[in-house]
Amino acid sequence: MRTLIRTSFALVAAIVLVAAPVAGDEGMWMPSQIPELAPQLEKMGFRGDASAFAGPTGQPMGAIVSLGFCTASFVSPDGLMATNHHCAAGALQYNSVPERNLLQDGFLAKTREDEVSNGPGSQVWVTVSFENVTDAITGDIDPALGDLERHELIERRIKRQTAGCEADGLHCQVSSFFEGLEYYELAQLEIPDVRLVYAPAEGIGNFGGETDNWRWPRHTGDWSFFRAYVGPDGEPAPFSNDNVPYRPKHWLKVQPNGVADGDCVFVVGYPGKTQRHYTFEEVRDTVEWGYPSTIRRYEEQIKILEDLGRDDEALRLKASGRLRGLHNSLTNRKGMLEGLVDGGILAQKEQRQTELAEWIAADPERQKTYGYVLPGLADVEEESLRTRERDDILAQLLPSLGSRTRLSRASLVSAAHTARLLAEAKAKKDIDRERGLQERDWSRIREVQERMQQSFDVRIDRALLRWAFVRAAALAAEERIEGLDELLGLTPGMAEADSARAIDAYLDRLYAGTKAADQAFRLSLLEMTSTELDATGDSFLELAATLDSLYQVNREAEKRAEGASSRLRPLYAEAMIEKTDGPVAPDANSTLRVTYGQVLGVDGRDGVYWKPFTTLAGIEQKHTGEGEFDAPAAEMKAIEALRQGKETPYVKESLEDVPVDFLSSVDTTGGNSGSPTLNGHGELVGLLFDGTYDTVASDFLFDPVRTRSIHADVRYLLWVMSEVDGATHLIEEMGIN
Amino acid sequence: MRTLIRTSFALVAAIVLVAAPVAGDEGMWMPSQIPELAPQLEKMGFRGDASAFAGPTGQPMGAIVSLGFCTASFVSPDGLMATNHHCAAGALQYNSVPERNLLQDGFLAKTREDEVSNGPGSQVWVTVSFENVTDAITGDIDPALGDLERHELIERRIKRQTAGCEADGLHCQVSSFFEGLEYYELAQLEIPDVRLVYAPAEGIGNFGGETDNWRWPRHTGDWSFFRAYVGPDGEPAPFSNDNVPYRPKHWLKVQPNGVADGDCVFVVGYPGKTQRHYTFEEVRDTVEWGYPSTIRRYEEQIKILEDLGRDDEALRLKASGRLRGLHNSLTNRKGMLEGLVDGGILAQKEQRQTELAEWIAADPERQKTYGYVLPGLADVEEESLRTRERDDILAQLLPSLGSRTRLSRASLVSAAHTARLLAEAKAKKDIDRERGLQERDWSRIREVQERMQQSFDVRIDRALLRWAFVRAAALAAEERIEGLDELLGLTPGMAEADSARAIDAYLDRLYAGTKAADQAFRLSLLEMTSTELDATGDSFLELAATLDSLYQVNREAEKRAEGASSRLRPLYAEAMIEKTDGPVAPDANSTLRVTYGQVLGVDGRDGVYWKPFTTLAGIEQKHTGEGEFDAPAAEMKAIEALRQGKETPYVKESLEDVPVDFLSSVDTTGGNSGSPTLNGHGELVGLLFDGTYDTVASDFLFDPVRTRSIHADVRYLLWVMSEVDGATHLIEEMGIN
Repeated sequence: MRTLIRTSFALVAAIVLVAAPVAGDEGMWMPSQIPELAPQLEKMGFRGDASAFAGPTGQPMGAIVSLGFCTASFVSPDGLMATNHHCAAGALQYNSVPERNLLQDGFLAKTREDEVSNGPGSQVWVTVSFENVTDAITGDIDPALGDLERHELIERRIKRQTAGCEADGLHCQVSSFFEGLEYYELAQLEIPDVRLVYAPAEGIGNFGGETDNWRWPRHTGDWSFFRAYVGPDGEPAPFSNDNVPYRPKHWLKVQPNGVADGDCVFVVGYPGKTQRHYTFEEVRDTVEWGYPSTIRRYEEQIKILEDLGRDDEALRLKASGRLRGLHNSLTNRKGMLEGLVDGGILAQKEQRQTELAEWIAADPERQKTYGYVLPGLADVEEESLRTRERDDILAQLLPSLGSRTRLSRASLVSAAHTARLLAEAKAKKDIDRERGLQERDWSRIREVQERMQQSFDVRIDRALLRWAFVRAAALAAEERIEGLDELLGLTPGMAEADSARAIDAYLDRLYAGTKAADQAFRLSLLEMTSTELDATGDSFLELAATLDSLYQVNREAEKRAEGASSRLRPLYAEAMIEKTDGPVAPDANSTLRVTYGQVLGVDGRDGVYWKPFTTLAGIEQKHTGEGEFDAPAAEMKAIEALRQGKETPYVKESLEDVPVDFLSSVDTTGGNSGSPTLNGHGELVGLLFDGTYDTVASDFLFDPVRTRSIHADVRYLLWVMSEVDGATHLIEEMGIN
Repeated sequence: MRTLIRTSFALVAAIVLVAAPVAGDEGMWMPSQIPELAPQLEKMGFRGDASAFAGPTGQPMGAIVSLGFCTASFVSPDGLMATNHHCAAGALQYNSVPERNLLQDGFLAKTREDEVSNGPGSQVWVTVSFENVTDAITGDIDPALGDLERHELIERRIKRQTAGCEADGLHCQVSSFFEGLEYYELAQLEIPDVRLVYAPAEGIGNFGGETDNWRWPRHTGDWSFFRAYVGPDGEPAPFSNDNVPYRPKHWLKVQPNGVADGDCVFVVGYPGKTQRHYTFEEVRDTVEWGYPSTIRRYEEQIKILEDLGRDDEALRLKASGRLRGLHNSLTNRKGMLEGLVDGGILAQKEQRQTELAEWIAADPERQKTYGYVLPGLADVEEESLRTRERDDILAQLLPSLGSRTRLSRASLVSAAHTARLLAEAKAKKDIDRERGLQERDWSRIREVQERMQQSFDVRIDRALLRWAFVRAAALAAEERIEGLDELLGLTPGMAEADSARAIDAYLDRLYAGTKAADQAFRLSLLEMTSTELDATGDSFLELAATLDSLYQVNREAEKRAEGASSRLRPLYAEAMIEKTDGPVAPDANSTLRVTYGQVLGVDGRDGVYWKPFTTLAGIEQKHTGEGEFDAPAAEMKAIEALRQGKETPYVKESLEDVPVDFLSSVDTTGGNSGSPTLNGHGELVGLLFDGTYDTVASDFLFDPVRTRSIHADVRYLLWVMSEVDGATHLIEEMGIN
């Protein structure tokens, strides 16, 4: 599912994450916590050794890797990896040519020689170590330190820690757990040569498309296979014909018998971000303003892009990826809002916070330690609301530094601003540069600009920029974006038609005065000093400079707030953990996690029960031969052969059919896409790829009754590989006879 | 459900019905057959006395009455009757005035004085006797008689039998069972003074509208209440303020505790028509030509009516009833076709017929008795196909005599033709008149013309007539409608534009030359002799006369075919019964039937299970406050009060909510609408009102796995009466405290 691709980078955002009490199957657990949970696992029917999941580098955990935006797992000793079909969209697009659309037709390398590069910027991260570094990050901080200085100190310590770790040639990441109560350092081997091995046709891998996205019953074969390659010496190396398949220490055994209703299952992967312990005030503001305004923005931008593409095929293609993303996010946000309001999550949040406050107040000692925390966090939140309209528009123009979404929003103004920030950063020592602008980040910044070209069209760029300017023109007098009024010739309270005219006139000048639409020029900006940038006289650099004043003001306020949070939130987490009976899972933060649950159906709308398995029969029912429900002819023929009695080991007896997808009660979120679903023996029985619509809001509060994740069944995978796509050599490579 | 309103009159049509073997819960049984089925009932959990259902005039059977198009049942000693909301549409419309739309707002008579007439043509038929009259109808017929003469003889005997029965002032009907193997005479008391007592608002009674029609999960409160009135002497009498409530011999006890999952239930009512034993050839032709052509016709007519109404509110209102009917029938026919083809019914039919043929051929004696039957029926069917395109168009212009659908198709040309047929019939003795044109039918013929005015608009009439002419113009040379070409100035093979011009020119003349749009004139036609009709010089009478030549030719061919069928079909039925192990249910024919089954969920599409009960929670989920999902404010408030803890005896513990509708495996069809659903003690626990979409094709072959009927739960009925509509006096009248 696009669903579970991470939609935002978690490093900065993780500041607001907090611990969650255990309930039902809730919890994206740190591997080290699994042995503590043995009693719960036993209750769920698990009879294996829970400690097998404890070490992040043992079996099976060592076989699970990160692709950055998705999870994957090794399934052979020759570095073959399984992940989702939708995690391969980039690789399929990269290898497509006008006469051969791999996204549509799928891809199968019959031999290793046929395996093709996933494209620049690809990587596989294999976990090497995972260590508690809390003392090094937050030990011995003078309590009298101001919030800004406190933030800077922690940032500097994180950068130093990371630099020390990466000195060994690894990829390292220091992450906050339990709201900054603990910090861990994750060290990973980064393998840049990743190749496409196999992906089914879109009519299997994305069967049901947007219509079925986030929905059950589902019939999507959402898998693809990659292979990691390394230099002849076994060390990571850029793509080269001399490279050889990577030999991982661990790989998963594939269990062709799959799972049954009620079976205990595990999902291991890299979930991106959850907000289970936003304070009540944060959730309330999200409900009242944040999501409604985001939904409005998505809807407006969708309309702009659809209008642009209506009569222009080329433009439609350029906008298609962005539109898919917008539609997906729109559905997500609507689901969130429904869950938060209609589903009663907001009310439950308030209830829980009241209980926490009462628990704190009930004991003088606790009152002394924690009494000021909730009011303090409420103040931080309150402060952030003051200029939220203005800040939201600015963030659309200049996305925040760590945000991966920069890629999807990529536009000339943010490109120009990135060049400016980079030039300023380069003038400093590496340790003094902000995270995201350090030397380790430069290649990725360049890649983002390179990839941007694919979806770039000046008409799209201008239409979205105009949309932001129109919103800026309508801001109240006390919330204007500094400098912008002068540049565009706007005044607060100006008639709409007048401001539109001024904006259009400015946009004419802006696009006439830039060369940034040219990729070579844009990339050259990344190599310039500040002086050189000024010397170009490019109109977009002028715009970026104008916006930068407010950006810097906001950035400092943000740092101050983060400093305050780093004082308050660990105590908030500590109080919550102290109050909770039993182990607590930290919020997701893009590190390796284990979640467990059962294969389990669930009540749908009133009068409807969703069974845990779907079957090939549903593909026959949904297949229309066109659009989103266009199963390949080869698959329809294979189903027909099965119906005529052709034998296959992948039929589930109780269903009298091949299972396609299944539901489980595991707890997952964006970033989990592609995660292997394991049985109690650590064997692969499916691939996690989506959650139901009712599940979306569980990012805020886990609902053990309604939350369900959606998995592709390994039997469907093997049946398609064997009966439809002729990928029997891969089945053999996975050790299945 | 509109679903189960009878859509065609069964007297003539019943000729093609035949026996069905028992399987699962299949069977719309004659009451007298129920004792034979005691073992099956016991297996289903029934612990009562099956013989209670045997007599059509005992308890509970005597409480069940026919409204002609729907079923109803007495629920109090004062003649109060329960039926469906959609069976009250006519009465609600009749009593509506511009400032008070009862269809929309519902109706409740607070006292008996407030009860209002259902309008002219209303009736309740209470069964008085039910007797086997086979000998009188088909005894001692000379086997050498020709088919036409044979048909005339049987018709004459039926008319004589009916006339004898009606001499006592009763309403009588002689019906064929088992394809003419048996005939029964049903004598009923006809009560013409029927009054509207209570119907909920449309937002309850038709909640979900077209969107939910034929669907599950369902949340429709499809009930209404009437009362039968008679003269002060207790005898049926036309509406009068002196009339008093009818005191039925039997009425149902209402069981406020309802039913539970798996409970045995009975539905008693007057199902209209099933085709369980069409021959394979008949089903094949229905699949290949009949239904596809009907579906095309519905779609074309829907488009015409929707286009007409688009800019004209008044026209839209006139067309609305017809459009609802067309949409309902379209969904029905599509469901039929899906079931027949995709559901494999056609293939099963072929299989069964092959088995029957083999069984016949396996024994020389059987071969001698039955060997010629299947080939003979195939010949009759073959003959009917020859000019089916032409005959289908003619039937659209001049619907067949017995067809109740005449009302819905009502148009000036059929009105003129009816006047002509009636005038010719009146010149004969009553016994020589065709059934449908006898003295007993005259008042109904007049009523149809009176009611027609309500939905009549000359623009609609002309548009539909034009549609038929355009189709007629396109007929092949060997299938032209005699006389029509000359009248309209058409020639076979004429260019489309030319024929359209000719048709429009003729239509101009036609509508300029008629007074038939005037109701008084149209009604006066029904009183004229043939000579008087000719003397009017009305253009529609000329058109009717032109079409009548072919009508008479077809009518004679039809009679010949029916004569042949009356020789062959009883033997077909006899062979089938002989071959079947156990009792066989005759096809539905608008006589009183009993069907039994269980409260039972069912698998929906792949991955979905439909639970047997829906609840108020579903109304909260579906309620949008507009269109088809607009529950009354009073109901939403009552639900809110319930959620806040207000006590009610109508909550089903296991659901923790008030049940709304439920599914059962009983076997029902059009005409069953309003039938009471009884528990094993003969107590009312719900009202049958629809079937699921998968059920539609069961008219052809009962599928015990997928077929489900939909009932309104008595607890929802009582909860709404008590908490929403304030109908507590009726609850008391039904004897519930």
